[in-house]
Amino acid sequence: MPAQRPATPPSGTLFVGVPDMVRLVRRKGLPACIAGVAARIEADFLRWPEFDKSARVASHSADGVIELMPIADATRFAFKYVNGHPKNTRSGLPTVMAFGVLADVATGAPRLLAELTLTTAIRTAATSAVAARRLARPDSRRMALIGNGAQSEFQAMAFRDLVGIRELRLFDTDPAASAKLAANLRGQGLDVRVCASTADAVRGADIVTTVTADKALATIVTPAMVEPGMHFNAVGGDCPGKTELHRAVLEGADVFVEFEPQSRVEGDIQQLPADFPVTELWRVLAGHAPGRRDARQVTVFDSVGFALEDYSALCWLAETAAALGLGEHVDLVPQATDPKNLFGLLHGAPVAVAA
Amino acid sequence: MPAQRPATPPSGTLFVGVPDMVRLVRRKGLPACIAGVAARIEADFLRWPEFDKSARVASHSADGVIELMPIADATRFAFKYVNGHPKNTRSGLPTVMAFGVLADVATGAPRLLAELTLTTAIRTAATSAVAARRLARPDSRRMALIGNGAQSEFQAMAFRDLVGIRELRLFDTDPAASAKLAANLRGQGLDVRVCASTADAVRGADIVTTVTADKALATIVTPAMVEPGMHFNAVGGDCPGKTELHRAVLEGADVFVEFEPQSRVEGDIQQLPADFPVTELWRVLAGHAPGRRDARQVTVFDSVGFALEDYSALCWLAETAAALGLGEHVDLVPQATDPKNLFGLLHGAPVAVAA
Repeated sequence: MPAQRPATPPSGTLFVGVPDMVRLVRRKGLPACIAGVAARIEADFLRWPEFDKSARVASHSADGVIELMPIADATRFAFKYVNGHPKNTRSGLPTVMAFGVLADVATGAPRLLAELTLTTAIRTAATSAVAARRLARPDSRRMALIGNGAQSEFQAMAFRDLVGIRELRLFDTDPAASAKLAANLRGQGLDVRVCASTADAVRGADIVTTVTADKALATIVTPAMVEPGMHFNAVGGDCPGKTELHRAVLEGADVFVEFEPQSRVEGDIQQLPADFPVTELWRVLAGHAPGRRDARQVTVFDSVGFALEDYSALCWLAETAAALGLGEHVDLVPQATDPKNLFGLLHGAPVAVAA
Repeated sequence: MPAQRPATPPSGTLFVGVPDMVRLVRRKGLPACIAGVAARIEADFLRWPEFDKSARVASHSADGVIELMPIADATRFAFKYVNGHPKNTRSGLPTVMAFGVLADVATGAPRLLAELTLTTAIRTAATSAVAARRLARPDSRRMALIGNGAQSEFQAMAFRDLVGIRELRLFDTDPAASAKLAANLRGQGLDVRVCASTADAVRGADIVTTVTADKALATIVTPAMVEPGMHFNAVGGDCPGKTELHRAVLEGADVFVEFEPQSRVEGDIQQLPADFPVTELWRVLAGHAPGRRDARQVTVFDSVGFALEDYSALCWLAETAAALGLGEHVDLVPQATDPKNLFGLLHGAPVAVAA
């Protein structure tokens, strides 16, 4: 598959920083990237039992959270570092920043170190679309997009290409964010309208995507807004104390999650008792559980983001960067000739540098 | 303190890879590095209650383990990635490889990405010495060093400079490892002798350091080897199923640990009931608990390596690299001008690169 894989030493690490990721997306095109990651996510979710899974480890502070998200199968270990700081935008920093590593399970050697801020937006949108293909009505054409920040364009493109959305209804408490999204989507084959409220945007929509950033128990969607047959793609409620849907919306719907132990703590379902029934998405993809059953059923994908999605994205990124010859080798760990002589690295021997 | 701190953008990340870490150690000198990290570890252990602590997250496989070790105080979040794969040396890879990140808690921005393989050897030796200063007899001069692999020179230097050790008795199941250690220590002011067995090396020692690598319930030290007043610095038993001391050695000693919840699972004390009394090292350093009480007491530092030691090492590294002008800036996360317009990074705008 890779056309010109660079020569990598046995324990060498390829670094794909933000500039290389931008180059990669420009060369492949964003739609191809989203589709590629979505295909990888769907394939990996079908291998669900093969993964060593755990809820992510979160470190909460007054203004945000920093999380580590590890996962492994028999051959590869992956983790993502990701923060969530809603006030960051006031000081010119992204709300969400991320990077991650893919390592060999057999040796522990880190093989890929990559930016994951752009990549997280791609994989989150890809996951939302993979879920909506099973949970939204097949004739869905109109989507309300509530929260028009950094991730919104990626959601719009994923739903256009993978779900068939043609009309978007936008709302954000910050009108400048909606204007930015509308401008970015011009010429993309979408009928885009900015609305005056969440209720206006949601009215008549087939799919409602919420991707807001406040770290609060917000009620973006109320029961009065729900129409029969709607699918809710709830992306922004993703840590304790951070929700978007009124609990009655959840109670009146069939709710699907990524990894139940993590979603019980972080998802919108944190508002509900621990025995409220939910279905893990992989079971729907694998045919073990039904997705949407009829045209009037209300479905919710209570997405919080799971480590497996980042594993999939990192694997896709490793292959794609190698195929395009992007990235550079970095000495994150020693390429020692005598592994028992770490001390020797300091004395006499020239500094080892990966080829 | 930093003489010439490079201009760092508000969310920029400094990368200190293996070659820069080697340069740093060569310029400061290894003894100064060990002493600097030890001072930082001791100061940070005195702030123990200020840290958000958790046991590390381990992913075990047939031949090894990959761990993530996060920790944070009110201003900085740190984590280390570290593996342990004893068979790696057969294929020319280090048993232990590590890297880590220091981030701002207020924004989540990663500020330092650093190699931590060399640094882990330094901080492990520094921690051992900090503990031995309180737990070994003050007149300790002779140390047995069992396990003569990658970390052994660092232990020898730390105990020479910070504890006053003048004689070393070496043993390793691999004679080449002992020969390498003895050669590396020539001219360092230490009386070094290679012994034929662990028992030979331990006989008459004031301090016994075990830093072996096998992932097994090994019995390196048996009760018959224990002499009154000995201090055991047990470094190599550091994950479930990996121990070095016979349980009777522990039962006959006063045992000190880093972070009890982690040590109960990973330390040599995993062989003992959960109510076997242990003392956390920070309580000794802070004067809340006694260390050594008399010259005949047998003490054990059942060290597994705790995230706070890496936090300390990363803070020291950030300051030292800045002071020496070492490291380079990498675009691990976007330096976006409009943080809500991640998509804009892909279209039209030139690729942002940290200054």
